[in-house]
Amino acid sequence: MIRAGIYGATGYTGYELVRLLARHPQVEVGFVTSESQAGRPLSVIFPQAPAYELVAAAKAPLDQVDVVFLCLPHAAAAPTAVSALNAGKRVIDLSADFRLKERTVYEQWYKVSHPAPDWLAAAVYGLTEFARAELSEAQLVANPGCYPTSILLGLQPLLAAGLPLNGPIIADSKSGVSGAGRMPRQHTHFVEVAGNFTPYGIGRGHRHLPEIEQQIRSWQPDAPPLIFSPHLLPVPRGILSTIYVNPDMVIGHRSSVIGEVRGLYEAAYEDEPFVDVLPEGEVATLAHVVHSNRCAIGLTMAGSTLIITSAIDNLIKGAAGQAVQNMNVMVGFEETMGLKS
Amino acid sequence: MIRAGIYGATGYTGYELVRLLARHPQVEVGFVTSESQAGRPLSVIFPQAPAYELVAAAKAPLDQVDVVFLCLPHAAAAPTAVSALNAGKRVIDLSADFRLKERTVYEQWYKVSHPAPDWLAAAVYGLTEFARAELSEAQLVANPGCYPTSILLGLQPLLAAGLPLNGPIIADSKSGVSGAGRMPRQHTHFVEVAGNFTPYGIGRGHRHLPEIEQQIRSWQPDAPPLIFSPHLLPVPRGILSTIYVNPDMVIGHRSSVIGEVRGLYEAAYEDEPFVDVLPEGEVATLAHVVHSNRCAIGLTMAGSTLIITSAIDNLIKGAAGQAVQNMNVMVGFEETMGLKS
Amino acid sequence: MIRAGIYGATGYTGYELVRLLARHPQVEVGFVTSESQAGRPLSVIFPQAPAYELVAAAKAPLDQVDVVFLCLPHAAAAPTAVSALNAGKRVIDLSADFRLKERTVYEQWYKVSHPAPDWLAAAVYGLTEFARAELSEAQLVANPGCYPTSILLGLQPLLAAGLPLNGPIIADSKSGVSGAGRMPRQHTHFVEVAGNFTPYGIGRGHRHLPEIEQQIRSWQPDAPPLIFSPHLLPVPRGILSTIYVNPDMVIGHRSSVIGEVRGLYEAAYEDEPFVDVLPEGEVATLAHVVHSNRCAIGLTMAGSTLIITSAIDNLIKGAAGQAVQNMNVMVGFEETMGLKS
Amino acid sequence: MIRAGIYGATGYTGYELVRLLARHPQVEVGFVTSESQAGRPLSVIFPQAPAYELVAAAKAPLDQVDVVFLCLPHAAAAPTAVSALNAGKRVIDLSADFRLKERTVYEQWYKVSHPAPDWLAAAVYGLTEFARAELSEAQLVANPGCYPTSILLGLQPLLAAGLPLNGPIIADSKSGVSGAGRMPRQHTHFVEVAGNFTPYGIGRGHRHLPEIEQQIRSWQPDAPPLIFSPHLLPVPRGILSTIYVNPDMVIGHRSSVIGEVRGLYEAAYEDEPFVDVLPEGEVATLAHVVHSNRCAIGLTMAGSTLIITSAIDNLIKGAAGQAVQNMNVMVGFEETMGLKS
Repeated sequence: MIRAGIYGATGYTGYELVRLLARHPQVEVGFVTSESQAGRPLSVIFPQAPAYELVAAAKAPLDQVDVVFLCLPHAAAAPTAVSALNAGKRVIDLSADFRLKERTVYEQWYKVSHPAPDWLAAAVYGLTEFARAELSEAQLVANPGCYPTSILLGLQPLLAAGLPLNGPIIADSKSGVSGAGRMPRQHTHFVEVAGNFTPYGIGRGHRHLPEIEQQIRSWQPDAPPLIFSPHLLPVPRGILSTIYVNPDMVIGHRSSVIGEVRGLYEAAYEDEPFVDVLPEGEVATLAHVVHSNRCAIGLTMAGSTLIITSAIDNLIKGAAGQAVQNMNVMVGFEETMGLKS
Repeated sequence: MIRAGIYGATGYTGYELVRLLARHPQVEVGFVTSESQAGRPLSVIFPQAPAYELVAAAKAPLDQVDVVFLCLPHAAAAPTAVSALNAGKRVIDLSADFRLKERTVYEQWYKVSHPAPDWLAAAVYGLTEFARAELSEAQLVANPGCYPTSILLGLQPLLAAGLPLNGPIIADSKSGVSGAGRMPRQHTHFVEVAGNFTPYGIGRGHRHLPEIEQQIRSWQPDAPPLIFSPHLLPVPRGILSTIYVNPDMVIGHRSSVIGEVRGLYEAAYEDEPFVDVLPEGEVATLAHVVHSNRCAIGLTMAGSTLIITSAIDNLIKGAAGQAVQNMNVMVGFEETMGLKS
Repeated sequence: MIRAGIYGATGYTGYELVRLLARHPQVEVGFVTSESQAGRPLSVIFPQAPAYELVAAAKAPLDQVDVVFLCLPHAAAAPTAVSALNAGKRVIDLSADFRLKERTVYEQWYKVSHPAPDWLAAAVYGLTEFARAELSEAQLVANPGCYPTSILLGLQPLLAAGLPLNGPIIADSKSGVSGAGRMPRQHTHFVEVAGNFTPYGIGRGHRHLPEIEQQIRSWQPDAPPLIFSPHLLPVPRGILSTIYVNPDMVIGHRSSVIGEVRGLYEAAYEDEPFVDVLPEGEVATLAHVVHSNRCAIGLTMAGSTLIITSAIDNLIKGAAGQAVQNMNVMVGFEETMGLKS
Repeated sequence: MIRAGIYGATGYTGYELVRLLARHPQVEVGFVTSESQAGRPLSVIFPQAPAYELVAAAKAPLDQVDVVFLCLPHAAAAPTAVSALNAGKRVIDLSADFRLKERTVYEQWYKVSHPAPDWLAAAVYGLTEFARAELSEAQLVANPGCYPTSILLGLQPLLAAGLPLNGPIIADSKSGVSGAGRMPRQHTHFVEVAGNFTPYGIGRGHRHLPEIEQQIRSWQPDAPPLIFSPHLLPVPRGILSTIYVNPDMVIGHRSSVIGEVRGLYEAAYEDEPFVDVLPEGEVATLAHVVHSNRCAIGLTMAGSTLIITSAIDNLIKGAAGQAVQNMNVMVGFEETMGLKS
């Protein structure tokens, strides 16, 4: 049994994490923080929440927990992470602060000085399926973004195989509204979203782009550039990425290419508890994954183009669920503990 | 041809009004105001908006218009109304500022001093179907609230007939989210609304309660009290009120009561272009009315209780459409002009 | 550890039950049936379903299970129930076949001969909170309907106290679309439902009406008639009933009445794991209950009318969850086993 | 003033057409047909419908109309078209029967013998903006499919310019549920669609693929193949296609390429009343187009990839609205008549 503290429990990700940890058989929740709602029960905000009282971060009993989770905005997470690390705690940061290895890239995309650049090297990028060895020793884990998780799990077996790819990799991604956070904004108003569907950040670049490209290059250094097109779906949760790549294979005819590609994916994921390579002819949908820590992956050829459909629940496998999965690996629990749906 | 100015064009009601007036064959839009967006085209906010540029209220060319519409918050509308009235313009106010006849009632419910109490007596309550005579001479029209319109049109024939009623009148009303305004709030966030359904303001009292009761008493001074229960529906627009009354009729058996009641409604509304009394066995739904200026009314008996279902589009018959309908009557245009769907 | 069989696993209720039983620590799923999909895995229909293969009912290994659940249409459930009962199995029937005590009432409302009238007397109406003693010995449990569960839990403490009530009891209920079943119909087409809100079965009577009235009379034989108005909400799941009653209390002023009523509810439900009486000023919403076995109850006075808001998830507390809760009581498991969210 | 007959008025497209024609100032609706609902008013199905009575097709007074619209299933439309053509009527067919020039291609994709192959050559493909000259003389117009309209309007200026393109053209398209028709099916059930998002027909090929490719080749015979990925959006109406192409331009740097491309689009569409090329930095969304006959087109460069976002209302510009636009051109009315929103 370990004890965990959650900084920033009143956002959608924070609450999902509280919910998961509250039912985890080997975790006790030590504290949940909120600045604006300190002193009130979490159930004031989420009526089904467990009976925890929110405390201000400064008053959180850090010394009584073993691991902390940070569900704070970027730039706010890093200083809290450093305090916890200095106190000897293991830290899983769900913000973007430790995802990018290059300080300059972070500062270019997030428009702030990095608050703790000395920790960048030590941070482990926690795409669990491909980080287990490092996770077991990690002090600081950068939990991947939601879009990156859906795209990277969808691409890894192909990229790791080193097949040359023609033209750009295109990821046409669609996300539910909880990905935009709980703070009310004009573009998350029900009346603006219902019945609508909107691309955003196309071309100019979404902040998840450098994160995805960093990982792509770690698997295939000369991979072609990524075109990333996020869209806002009128659903509360879930991400589906439709990914287009053109593998340059010697074998000419379609059935062989798809067979070879399918073999790569099945080999990569056959023992994975949370990644499902769907049978031939089946495409990934949100219904495969919402309210679960699963990633569903469909593979289809259209001419010489491979179309990968990859779906996750943005709040679970794309955030809180993967954070718990990372914690399980770090601490040595069974990886699926507390995550079966 | 007349010219109209619209104060507050960037809310949902304001925009709906702009849309209706832009296609009205006898109206030219003189100006549309916004404080925060002055200088920008309205289409920056609503991509299908006509090509009007927003101006600050202080710079609106009031002298160039014949009639003004106020889509401003309560307490902000009244001073603008007074300026326009003093300039000799006819004013249709879509806020609550002139709906309540008693200054003290207004101040009790809205928690502010009334900004223009001297105009309360002159204001005509613009439930068009029952205000035509006064409207033709009116300088100042208080456009009814959305909930009140659905409930009052559903009750008037019964109340005007003077039938004694047993027990309270119960209006269980359900409204789409645009009724809560365009300003983003926590409770209008897509993720909070989608998949949810919430009563609010029950018992303690919604601000539309005194407005509805004032009209009820004008038709039947000794009517029983109203129980008004608003609920938030996960749809962009539309209100459905399910109204329960117990008429105390001498005639004992059910078929006669419903026949008599139906006769009252058909007599009241048979020549009304925008109020449809539905045939026996049919209930009102949002599909009857959204995107139109119609009110659909269904009548059903259950034991000795009369159940009235009354549906409107909250932004049209419940706001902008009724405002145009009132303008048509005031100016002497055909009442349906610009309002056929 | 017991073994359970589920007849009719491809409807929304059947699948919810499979999902709950698959994670129940003391239950093993023995079989899941479907006529049209026999031989295929359940995951063909529900992509997140556990790995069970559907079998035709006639081939289900009835002898290998201890308890059976029937998620079959009315009239089809009863014969299957009788076969299982004759084989000595305990039966939880989620259809309407054994809910009404009077065969004639059943035949009048369902327009078929009752297939097994001899079992009506033995069937226990499984509104768990008020049936524990009978459940522990029951061979046959009639699992309550979804609307009845929301309304009856909302009324029981008041009715059981024997307070005289004036005028009818009005239940204005709103249900998500899964309550209409998985078979596609015109009125469940996405385009018909989205953006719409529709009353149905008002006045003429919904089939749940006699079921509710039967229970009401069992608690207060001279209770006034029930007016039951179901509405179709554009959400997948959840029921909210807004219930209006007029208790005839000697004590005149409002604060005392509500205090007294609140006392009744708190006394009735204080030890109940799945029924929450909400604090003063809070109303029940779907967000309190979806994806859980909870019933949330809010209490408000408006004049002399008591407004009870009662919310459940129609598929869980209104069907599959309550069925598992009943099984737990029947078998002697902890009542909340497998039902914590 | 002309008279029009509508075959198949009870589907979503048929009703939208009735609605548009009923308010068209120069059209009188001569008849509306339905086999299953003959004899009943259209308002039984669509509560806001104009007061027309449905007749069986065989009883429709064909001799009293000038033009007929066919909103019938494929293979059923062609024989009706032939009858009307033989009677000297002008025909606008909204089915797929006359869209493909090659009979064999039709038969391969639709799995039926073509009912009227002799008329294929004479049929004009009615993508209005690029068919005006032929439309004015046409007897038979094949109204384009909804997906094709969104994709083709988004591609024409680029393809007509003859710029060489690298790699495939990718159209990642998302459609509202009305595109699947009004007949209830499992995949259009509200509970299956709400909160979900599903690719379908990817790779194996949707029937709109040959229609789109036929037009693409007519503009650029050596254009690369099209990869077409349709997805089902949880909204009632609207299509957004996100289209990826790689123009092989000599000019190297991005600003010039996008500038040149933008010039092509602005030149092509500057006088078009229904096609809007959005300003730089703006992407097309459903909110730009629903309930209108508009097509909104956004242009963005990402590296050397041009991303075209193209949005229409599938029932209007993608079906009934374009049919009316075609009729206006055929008859010589002002092209926008009856289509201003």
